[in-house]
Amino acid sequence: MSTPQRTLHLNAFLMSTGHHEASWRLPESNPRASTDITHYQNLARIAERGTFDSIFFADSPVIFGDVGRRPAGKLEPTVLLTAIAAATEKIGLIATASTTYNDPFNLARRFASVDWVSGGRAGWNVVTTAGPEAAQNFGIDDQPAHATRYERAAEFLDVAAKLWDSWQDDAVLADKEAGIWADSAKVRPIDHDGKHFRVRGPLNVPRSPQGRPVIVQAGSSENGKGLAAKYAEAVFTAQQTLEGAQSFYADVKSRAVALGRRAESIKILPGIVPVIASTEAEALRLERELDQLIRPEYARVELAKTLRVAPEDLPLDRQLPAELPDEDSIEGAKSRYTLIVELARCEKLTVRQLIGRLGGGRGHLTFAGTPDQVADAIQLWFENGAADGFNIMPAVLPSGLETFVDSVVPVLRRRGLFRSEYSGNTLRDHYGLERPANHRVEAALFDSAAS
Amino acid sequence: MSTPQRTLHLNAFLMSTGHHEASWRLPESNPRASTDITHYQNLARIAERGTFDSIFFADSPVIFGDVGRRPAGKLEPTVLLTAIAAATEKIGLIATASTTYNDPFNLARRFASVDWVSGGRAGWNVVTTAGPEAAQNFGIDDQPAHATRYERAAEFLDVAAKLWDSWQDDAVLADKEAGIWADSAKVRPIDHDGKHFRVRGPLNVPRSPQGRPVIVQAGSSENGKGLAAKYAEAVFTAQQTLEGAQSFYADVKSRAVALGRRAESIKILPGIVPVIASTEAEALRLERELDQLIRPEYARVELAKTLRVAPEDLPLDRQLPAELPDEDSIEGAKSRYTLIVELARCEKLTVRQLIGRLGGGRGHLTFAGTPDQVADAIQLWFENGAADGFNIMPAVLPSGLETFVDSVVPVLRRRGLFRSEYSGNTLRDHYGLERPANHRVEAALFDSAAS
Repeated sequence: MSTPQRTLHLNAFLMSTGHHEASWRLPESNPRASTDITHYQNLARIAERGTFDSIFFADSPVIFGDVGRRPAGKLEPTVLLTAIAAATEKIGLIATASTTYNDPFNLARRFASVDWVSGGRAGWNVVTTAGPEAAQNFGIDDQPAHATRYERAAEFLDVAAKLWDSWQDDAVLADKEAGIWADSAKVRPIDHDGKHFRVRGPLNVPRSPQGRPVIVQAGSSENGKGLAAKYAEAVFTAQQTLEGAQSFYADVKSRAVALGRRAESIKILPGIVPVIASTEAEALRLERELDQLIRPEYARVELAKTLRVAPEDLPLDRQLPAELPDEDSIEGAKSRYTLIVELARCEKLTVRQLIGRLGGGRGHLTFAGTPDQVADAIQLWFENGAADGFNIMPAVLPSGLETFVDSVVPVLRRRGLFRSEYSGNTLRDHYGLERPANHRVEAALFDSAAS
Repeated sequence: MSTPQRTLHLNAFLMSTGHHEASWRLPESNPRASTDITHYQNLARIAERGTFDSIFFADSPVIFGDVGRRPAGKLEPTVLLTAIAAATEKIGLIATASTTYNDPFNLARRFASVDWVSGGRAGWNVVTTAGPEAAQNFGIDDQPAHATRYERAAEFLDVAAKLWDSWQDDAVLADKEAGIWADSAKVRPIDHDGKHFRVRGPLNVPRSPQGRPVIVQAGSSENGKGLAAKYAEAVFTAQQTLEGAQSFYADVKSRAVALGRRAESIKILPGIVPVIASTEAEALRLERELDQLIRPEYARVELAKTLRVAPEDLPLDRQLPAELPDEDSIEGAKSRYTLIVELARCEKLTVRQLIGRLGGGRGHLTFAGTPDQVADAIQLWFENGAADGFNIMPAVLPSGLETFVDSVVPVLRRRGLFRSEYSGNTLRDHYGLERPANHRVEAALFDSAAS
C-alpha cells in the first residue's frame, strides 16, 4: 500500500494593510482598508489564485493600545468572512472567536451558518482572550484566570460539538407528500449541564456541510497545547528556530496521539513573515525601510504593558531590565510573554531592536530573501518535522501576498510540494481532514475519546 | 413652502418558502431553501428589482414546535444578510436579534460590521425573545419577566448607541506623513455602568456609514409600544382592520411626539399577506389550496402552548374555550396572545379555521385579490392614517414576491405612491430617516431626549 504524498498547507493570515505595524504608512497602502470589504475580498481572491488552503483573521473584542499607532477597529470576523465567501469559491475561511466572551449557542450557530453560506469552508480559531480591557467590555473587572479560561474553552467546545451534532445528517426529510419536513427523532436536545454552561438545544440550524467547522487553536502555553491536543485540527504557532519548531511539532503531535488521535488529524502551521525580493540585499533593504516607519513611542507603551513594567523602565537603546515577572504570574497571553522575553534575551536586542522585530511579525519568524530562498526555508521545515504547512503573514498587503503567490507558490508547485489546483470543495478537503461523524449516531464526541 | 410628497415604504418580510406554513409542500417550492443562500440572494434581488426599501428576517435563538411541521432551522440573520449584501447593491437589510440573549458589545459590533460591509444598509429589529425554550439555551430555566426583558432592552439600546458613537465620524486621520492613524481624543471609552450592563468601550469598529443601523421594533404590548416610541425608527405590526391600524398608528406616533420626536421619524408598517391572482375568485382558490395542505395536528399543539391550555381542550371543529388566561398573566409574547384570542372571538372561528388563518399570516392581514385590489387596500391604509408603508409577507416564495413586484408595484408606481428607482444608497435614505448625529459631539443620545 502506497502512502499518499504529504502535501504542504498554506494559510494566509490577513490583517488590514499587512502585519508590519507601519505598513499603512507606505505610499501603496490604503489606510482605510480595515473597514473596506473590497480590500479583503481582493486579498482572498489573490490567495485563492494561489490555491491557498485558507485565509484567517485574528480577533479580540477590544481595541489594543493607541489608535494613533496603526489601523485599529476590525469588522467582526464571521461577518467579514461571510462577505468574502460570497466573492470566492474554494478557499477556506477561518475566523477567530473568543470562548470567554461568547455564548456557545449563539457562536455555534454563527459558525454553522457560515459553513452553510460558504458551502463547507468555515473554520474557527478558538481563543480565550487575554487582558482586563476585553473583560471590561463584558461587565467583568479583570480577565478570568488563565486556567479558568481554558477550562471554560474546553467545555465550550464540548457544548458546540453537541449542538453541531444535534441534527443528524439525514434529519431533513422534506417529504412533501406526507407533509413531514424533518424527522423529529433525529433532531434532539443536548441537555448539557456542566460547570460553565447549561444548554438545552437542539441548535436551530441543520448539521452543516462539514458537519462541524474546522477547529483551529493558536495558544502555545501548557493549557493551550493541552486544548489543541484534544480539540484542534490545525494549530498556528510562532516559532523562531527550526529546533524550536521541531520540538513544538513533536510535543503537540505526541500529546494528540496520547489521547488516541492520529498524528495526521492535527496540522501544525508556524507563522512566517516573508519579505521577498529578487535579491537578498533588496529584501533586507525593504525590511529596513518598513522598520524605519515605526514610531517607537507607541510600541514601547504596549511592550511595557505586556511585560508588566513601566514604559520609562524600557529605555529604547538598552536591553530589557534583568528583573521581569515570572511567566507563572502572567494571567494574560502567557506564551506571547515568554516568546518576547526569550527573543530579547537570546539575541541581546535593545528595546528599539526588539520593537522592530515585533513590529514586523509580532514574534513570528521574519524571512527576507528571494523566492527560492523562501521556498527553501519552507521546504526545510516541512521535510524535517517542524511544520505541516505555514501561516503566511505578509508584512504589506496586498503586495506581499501577491508577490508570494506569484513568485514563491510556483516554486513550491514545481518542487511537487504544493497543489496546482483544488482537489476538493471544503476546508476539510484542503487540509486533508475527515468530516467528523455525528457522535449521536456512531462515535464519541471527539475522536480522541474514541480510542 | 411645499411639503415633499409622502412616499410609501415597502419591506419584504422573507421566510424560507413563504409565510404560509404549508408553502414548502407545493410542487414549486424548494423544501431545503432555509439553508440555501442562493434562494435568499435570489429573493433579495427580486425585491431590489421592485425597489423595496428593505428585506427583513424574523429570528429567535430556538426551534419552536415540531420540526416535522415546516422548515425549521434558520441561518443566523447577520450572517444571512451579509451574504445577501454581497449579492445586492441598494436594498436595505434588516436582521432580528435578541437583547435578552446577546451582549451589547458583540451585537453592536456585528451590526456596525454589517453596516460597513453593505455600505450603509443595515437595520436591527430589536426583540426581547419570549419563552422558556430560548432561555434554556442560555443557562436560564425560564424567560425573564416581560417588564424585565423590556427594561434590559432599553438599557441595551442605550449601550449600543454609546458604542456606535464611541468613534467620532472624523476620528480616522490616516495621516501617513505624521504617522498618526486615528485621533485618540476622538475614540473614547463609554464607561457605561447601569443596572443590566457595565461596558467600558470604545467599540473596536469605527462609526459606520449610517452612524447607527436603523432601529426597528415589532412588539405591540404596552412595553413594546413604549420602547418603540423612544427608540424605533420603523415599527412592524400585525393589524387586522383599518380602524385597529389607525388607532395603533396614532397611538405610537403620539407617544413618540410626547417624547419630543417628530412624527415622521418613526415609520409604521403593518404586515399583509397578499394572495394575488387575476381574479378575486382565483386568488381565493389559491388561498384555500394552501390551507388544505396544513396538517392541523402540528398547529394545534403550538396553539395550545400559546394559549396555555392542553391540546385536547381545543377540539378542531369547535370555537376556543370560554375560559382562557388573562393577557396580564402572559409573560411571553403578550401582543400575539391577545391578537389570536381577539381574532378567534370576533370572527367566531373554529379551532380549525383559526389554524388556517394563523397558518397563512400568523395573525397578519391576509388579502386575496387582483393586483388593483391589493393596491387599493394599500392606498386606503396609507392615505388614511393607518400606515407609512407595508411589511409584505408573501405566502409562497419566491413566486408570491415575484407576483407582487411584477403586478402590484407597477400599479403603485403609476399611482405615484411608490418610487420607480432608488434615490439614495442607504437604508436611512430609503426610509427618509436622518443620519443620527454623534451624541458625544452635538446631540443627546436619542433625539427624543433632545427636545
